[in-house]
Amino acid sequence: MLSAAEQVTRSVQGHDADLPSRDARLAYRAGRVDVTAGVAPGYVQGNLAILPESLAASFHRFCQLNPKPCPIIGMSEVGDPRIPALGIDLDIRTDIPRYRVWRDGELTEEPTDIMAHWRDDLVAFVIGCSFSFEEALIADGLHIRHIDEQRNVPMYRTNIACKAAGPFEGRMVVSMRPFKPAEAIRAIQITTRFPSVHGAPVHIGKPELIGISNIAKPDYGDAVSIQPDEMPVFWACGVTPQSVILQSRPSFAITHAPGFMLVTDVRNSEFSIQ
Amino acid sequence: MLSAAEQVTRSVQGHDADLPSRDARLAYRAGRVDVTAGVAPGYVQGNLAILPESLAASFHRFCQLNPKPCPIIGMSEVGDPRIPALGIDLDIRTDIPRYRVWRDGELTEEPTDIMAHWRDDLVAFVIGCSFSFEEALIADGLHIRHIDEQRNVPMYRTNIACKAAGPFEGRMVVSMRPFKPAEAIRAIQITTRFPSVHGAPVHIGKPELIGISNIAKPDYGDAVSIQPDEMPVFWACGVTPQSVILQSRPSFAITHAPGFMLVTDVRNSEFSIQ
Repeated sequence: MLSAAEQVTRSVQGHDADLPSRDARLAYRAGRVDVTAGVAPGYVQGNLAILPESLAASFHRFCQLNPKPCPIIGMSEVGDPRIPALGIDLDIRTDIPRYRVWRDGELTEEPTDIMAHWRDDLVAFVIGCSFSFEEALIADGLHIRHIDEQRNVPMYRTNIACKAAGPFEGRMVVSMRPFKPAEAIRAIQITTRFPSVHGAPVHIGKPELIGISNIAKPDYGDAVSIQPDEMPVFWACGVTPQSVILQSRPSFAITHAPGFMLVTDVRNSEFSIQ
Repeated sequence: MLSAAEQVTRSVQGHDADLPSRDARLAYRAGRVDVTAGVAPGYVQGNLAILPESLAASFHRFCQLNPKPCPIIGMSEVGDPRIPALGIDLDIRTDIPRYRVWRDGELTEEPTDIMAHWRDDLVAFVIGCSFSFEEALIADGLHIRHIDEQRNVPMYRTNIACKAAGPFEGRMVVSMRPFKPAEAIRAIQITTRFPSVHGAPVHIGKPELIGISNIAKPDYGDAVSIQPDEMPVFWACGVTPQSVILQSRPSFAITHAPGFMLVTDVRNSEFSIQ
């Protein structure tokens, strides 16, 4: 079996210059600013975290220790804005529609490129996102409640401790999708195939067991309806690494702005291990 | 990927004359009478259903339509007591420690062999059993409650209708094992690999949704404890085909007696699709 990294390499070697994902990045690079939901269907979108080299090794170790909330799908060399494994011509400084710049843990700017902020000591991490497995769930005939209700996915802080690395520690954030029990079993089977984009759920039913006291009040995103014959199913969420980074109050960090993801040239199906 | 039948064939072609499963069958053939739990660990045990040819085609179709409760792992030719795919020298008339003979849906005898009952028009079906996947769950570090509590697995009649074929119709019987949510997710992943022995659960949590009004009162087997941080997980059960056969009140049928299974030469691991 190929590793995810080898799959990415293989993908890029056979890449097509007319990819819709590449077209999207070029449009963002040229100044377009839009949320990326629905852009380049079938292609992986990722969360962005950029840190100074002095913090990057600890953060990399944090991700290694916590692969379910923090699956790294690409990272740059120190000071190099390219991540060829995710797109031959990708430039992490310009190809995301909107960024957030953080100093000492405080949001200071929301620029549409980070040319003025890039430094020779920065390392960019791209972390998998549940868009990839949601596409597989929908392809199998399942309905995703927050999509049907045209809301953001509900997300909750839990009492599940991440494993600490250097200054990075904190609790896991989870996303929730309600399903009937037999659908939940199918959703577990399908998302198990996608370990690079959060994989199988971390919890099912009984929200109180993971420290969620009110399922109707998510900590991030929007509440969605849950029917009496449904159960909440919880996946590790890519908001976790951002939340952990900001809690550590790093001197400098850059992330994507919520909803404005990195669109990559990797196909969602390439992250399926079956 | 090989089909289960091809895997069985491959297994038998490479079979070892000193198999513990074969030794067990020879002992039963020689007159030993014991329940088969714990016998020949690592080897598949199966449920037995023998029907006259006039009913066998309908029953075969019933199993085909309902593979989760009725996974056929072997069947005989009409009138032939051998099932070489499950054991080169297997004789279905003598190799099970105790049988049940049914006439017009009523239990008439519990013999230790069926030499006197065998007929030229009989067809034997061997149906997978959850022992195989329980071994895989235990190997992964999960605890099976009814094994820890030294009881029979709790089984329940549900409101889940099987698909009908000829005279065979009825509701699915399920077995239940309680797990903490994260363990339940792992158990779903592991049993998904074993479609020939019931596969993934059919239901999780909320027993009332499948017509189980009192989880403390199983219809077959024994009740087991369920802790507040656990949820019941339900698998399709091999008792279903027996229950459906007897409901149809066939003129003649033979089954194994509960707990006295057919021990085969197929390794449990051969039924794993990964």
